[in-house]
Amino acid sequence: MSTVQKLLIVGGVAGGASAAARGRRLNEAAQIIVFERGPYVSFANCGLPYHLGGEIAERESLLLHTPESLTARFGLDVRVNSEVLSIDRQAKTIRVHNRQTGETYDESYDALILAPGAAPIRPPLPGLDNPRVFTLRTVPDLDRLMNAMTSTVKHVTVVGAGFIGLETVEALRHRGLAASLIERAPQVLTPLDAEMTTPLAATLQAHGVELLLGESLLSVVDGEQLTLQLESGHQLSTDLVVLAIGVKPENQLAREAGLEIGTTGGVLVNSHQQTSDTSIYAVGDAVEVLHTVNGKSVLLPLAGPANRQGRIAADTIFGRAASYRGSQGTAICKVFDLTAASTGLNERSLQAAEIPYQKLYLHGNDHASYYPGATMISLKVLFDPASGKLLGAQAVGEKGVDKRIDVLAVALQAGMTIDDLAEMELSYAPPYGAAKDPLNLVGMAAQNLQSGLLALINPEQLANELGHVQLIDVREPEEIASGQIAGARNIPLSQLRELSQLLDTSKPVVVYCMVGLRGYIAQRHLSQLGFQVRSLNGGYKTWQMWNMSQHQRV
Amino acid sequence: MSTVQKLLIVGGVAGGASAAARGRRLNEAAQIIVFERGPYVSFANCGLPYHLGGEIAERESLLLHTPESLTARFGLDVRVNSEVLSIDRQAKTIRVHNRQTGETYDESYDALILAPGAAPIRPPLPGLDNPRVFTLRTVPDLDRLMNAMTSTVKHVTVVGAGFIGLETVEALRHRGLAASLIERAPQVLTPLDAEMTTPLAATLQAHGVELLLGESLLSVVDGEQLTLQLESGHQLSTDLVVLAIGVKPENQLAREAGLEIGTTGGVLVNSHQQTSDTSIYAVGDAVEVLHTVNGKSVLLPLAGPANRQGRIAADTIFGRAASYRGSQGTAICKVFDLTAASTGLNERSLQAAEIPYQKLYLHGNDHASYYPGATMISLKVLFDPASGKLLGAQAVGEKGVDKRIDVLAVALQAGMTIDDLAEMELSYAPPYGAAKDPLNLVGMAAQNLQSGLLALINPEQLANELGHVQLIDVREPEEIASGQIAGARNIPLSQLRELSQLLDTSKPVVVYCMVGLRGYIAQRHLSQLGFQVRSLNGGYKTWQMWNMSQHQRV
Repeated sequence: MSTVQKLLIVGGVAGGASAAARGRRLNEAAQIIVFERGPYVSFANCGLPYHLGGEIAERESLLLHTPESLTARFGLDVRVNSEVLSIDRQAKTIRVHNRQTGETYDESYDALILAPGAAPIRPPLPGLDNPRVFTLRTVPDLDRLMNAMTSTVKHVTVVGAGFIGLETVEALRHRGLAASLIERAPQVLTPLDAEMTTPLAATLQAHGVELLLGESLLSVVDGEQLTLQLESGHQLSTDLVVLAIGVKPENQLAREAGLEIGTTGGVLVNSHQQTSDTSIYAVGDAVEVLHTVNGKSVLLPLAGPANRQGRIAADTIFGRAASYRGSQGTAICKVFDLTAASTGLNERSLQAAEIPYQKLYLHGNDHASYYPGATMISLKVLFDPASGKLLGAQAVGEKGVDKRIDVLAVALQAGMTIDDLAEMELSYAPPYGAAKDPLNLVGMAAQNLQSGLLALINPEQLANELGHVQLIDVREPEEIASGQIAGARNIPLSQLRELSQLLDTSKPVVVYCMVGLRGYIAQRHLSQLGFQVRSLNGGYKTWQMWNMSQHQRV
Repeated sequence: MSTVQKLLIVGGVAGGASAAARGRRLNEAAQIIVFERGPYVSFANCGLPYHLGGEIAERESLLLHTPESLTARFGLDVRVNSEVLSIDRQAKTIRVHNRQTGETYDESYDALILAPGAAPIRPPLPGLDNPRVFTLRTVPDLDRLMNAMTSTVKHVTVVGAGFIGLETVEALRHRGLAASLIERAPQVLTPLDAEMTTPLAATLQAHGVELLLGESLLSVVDGEQLTLQLESGHQLSTDLVVLAIGVKPENQLAREAGLEIGTTGGVLVNSHQQTSDTSIYAVGDAVEVLHTVNGKSVLLPLAGPANRQGRIAADTIFGRAASYRGSQGTAICKVFDLTAASTGLNERSLQAAEIPYQKLYLHGNDHASYYPGATMISLKVLFDPASGKLLGAQAVGEKGVDKRIDVLAVALQAGMTIDDLAEMELSYAPPYGAAKDPLNLVGMAAQNLQSGLLALINPEQLANELGHVQLIDVREPEEIASGQIAGARNIPLSQLRELSQLLDTSKPVVVYCMVGLRGYIAQRHLSQLGFQVRSLNGGYKTWQMWNMSQHQRV
């Protein structure tokens, strides 16, 4: 069926390793050679920060396979410290440089898979080539950083507050080091919208991280300590720097071979992971993918897609129908006691793409509030106002965040609507959820919004209208101790039925409670009495998050 | 739009309370009266066993609302201790008996919602009317049981190992009482298939519960202690008995009013929750529902559906389009350190209905194995062999069970196939999952099974074929210390490539490892060498579970 007798794979982690193993399971006879530039194959890339922090005690735990174990198990020819220098597409050969022996040789292929991954971005800033500036992408990166952590190191600065940056700064605090975190954006974790990340900023600071948002590194000056010059004029003394600004696809080999590169810089592939040369495939962080929600080409360097793409490339090569459907950008991050996760598009990207959307904030308990240990999850769900189809979702909280985002990710994958959300039959017993899960409540609230039962005002709108509306806080007096919105008048929901005649019928009303549920009940009541009334989306809790997001940059 | 000016609701918990609150949000003017036979409305039915066990310390936590709070918030007329005796459909009135004053009166309605719930089954066994025999369905039930737990009570017997029975027996152990659990079926928790429940049986016994499966209670004999006569001839001395055999729909009021009752005993309703009388609606545990997977009428007394049905009834009554889609039977139970959950149909019900299916067992870690604290989840997924569509799923494990079943529940709701499972983009960071989540692996394995790459043998088949096949254990020697299948020969996967010539090419081969992954790799290898080879579904772990299920009855 397939004529491929010799498969070469460039890169032996995630996508490359998956392709090799799948290839062997499909074809026992083919020669399969894996070339890995570094000394390790199939290592736990995503585990590196956790060994730095000590949660993963043994470095060996990160090495999932050795060349020997892959050879024994799969009959693969695994060559580490082997850099592929170039591809001769005409001759169907690659040139390999053995970094240990210095030898260079050619190897022929019937099919070639490129899985070189992505490289940490190192901006061309003065002093950034200092040996005390590190990245954290590979096991050797980790080894170098760990070795540099001598007893004289007291303070480390992480640049970039994405997934790796956040995990790294937490690891540093676990090691008892002082830590600063510099991020150019006015928020951490930009896959989420700013207001949804404010609990993360708060917990970082509560755990002793100096957080510098909206701040850029300009240069690194050597000395007994390093001096970091920041864009604000601020200077920072630190012992080590870890760069976690992001990664860019390793496209050089593909580019030099004349393969098409996408506008994002990722290698261009079709749904079978084939590049513009049908004998050459590419998978993982090196390729650009179609975003399943907006159909745009994007870079989404994630382990799950990389593994699945490797499998699909091997299937195609060995004559089995398989295609990649695109990525939706599901991701998650642990930040001390909190978890933040998202899937699909966020509000910023919907605005940028001028895609119509409605948004709903909901703060609900991870499980029945009467069962001990319940904690609050803050959810933001974005959906199409016309069809009700989900566009994206974000969540932050202590527990149950991964579950809700995974359910929403699958709902997004299935093209589900807010009606489907309202009807979801999720597992319920008091330790796990609620008879109406927060996801059901999101769906029900979205239905109410769409049908006009629920009239919302968003925090950014309320900020503009303050003073022009009658603002009613319907919480009980004891809840207000922790603060309320300036100018609000307190009429608890439990007394609103008696006291609604105190309101001015000629002036628009905005009601709010803590999370939005009682606000909705109050809004329905007043609306039916003839008031022009809106309920604050997600209540005071969302207001606080939004407000903090307006003031958290340096 | 709607002409309903007076809505009566029979039952003030779950479905009834949801309908009342929704009704008020839709219609401020209507008179809404809730009649509750018991002294409490809107109480946490599902929380009762947890107060018994002490996890929920305060009894008041179970009382989510009082008549007064519902009246203040929603302007409802809530009448507790008010039993509805009969319905006059002609006159559109109900007859109410005030159990405190003894007064009986009629109340008229434009629309009537029946939400009376279900009642614990009390079989007509001799001695079962003993005051030391309890049920656990309402707050008064709980109060009676708690009051009976004097210091002389040392041993309690629970009859029925369903959700309530299991939660109750755990609660009793938490209180330090000796406990026996009697179940007529040869397994606990019959929504799951027997082999999937064996870890629950093991943990019950490990926590000191005397477990009597395949055993029936015949009679209760009074004495200083109660003497329980069991079908096996066994006798059991105990201080108290809690009956948790199951519940039956409270259909008497509907039946006596001449409303149609389904074959299951549940009140018959259409998708708008309307009974055979268009002015009368019924919701919750009292009604029968369509099972979304097989389209059959079933009883599924669950809190989530009850709440959603209440909302739908109120919508319909007040002129809004809404319909119930049916139930899929998603449920979950905490059993000491384990969680068990399921959704859709199980293998027993598929067999009974003669629905074709394939099954896959998979045992995978709840999160990346190299990150501390990973524990194993055992999954069983059932799907249609032709279309690949999901039919049902079960899971048991310490952590992450609720997440996987919820994702599968939504996949089932969406009509997803095993291909969709393989491509799910779930959130991954080491503390939460894996680059290939167990659910992705299930999908991939199912694809392999469907395409013929994977050839499986199920434990029940292997039991029949033992002695007729070459049985190869491909685990490493050190893993075999904890046992292996009789007659198996150990050839570790890491040596199989060298040693495969030791196998007899003329005799069918069965390979197995611990959970099935290495078995699959071995099967692919040997199959391509020309062997007729199958891999044991779910490996030795499934074998153990299945084997235990064959021997766990009394």
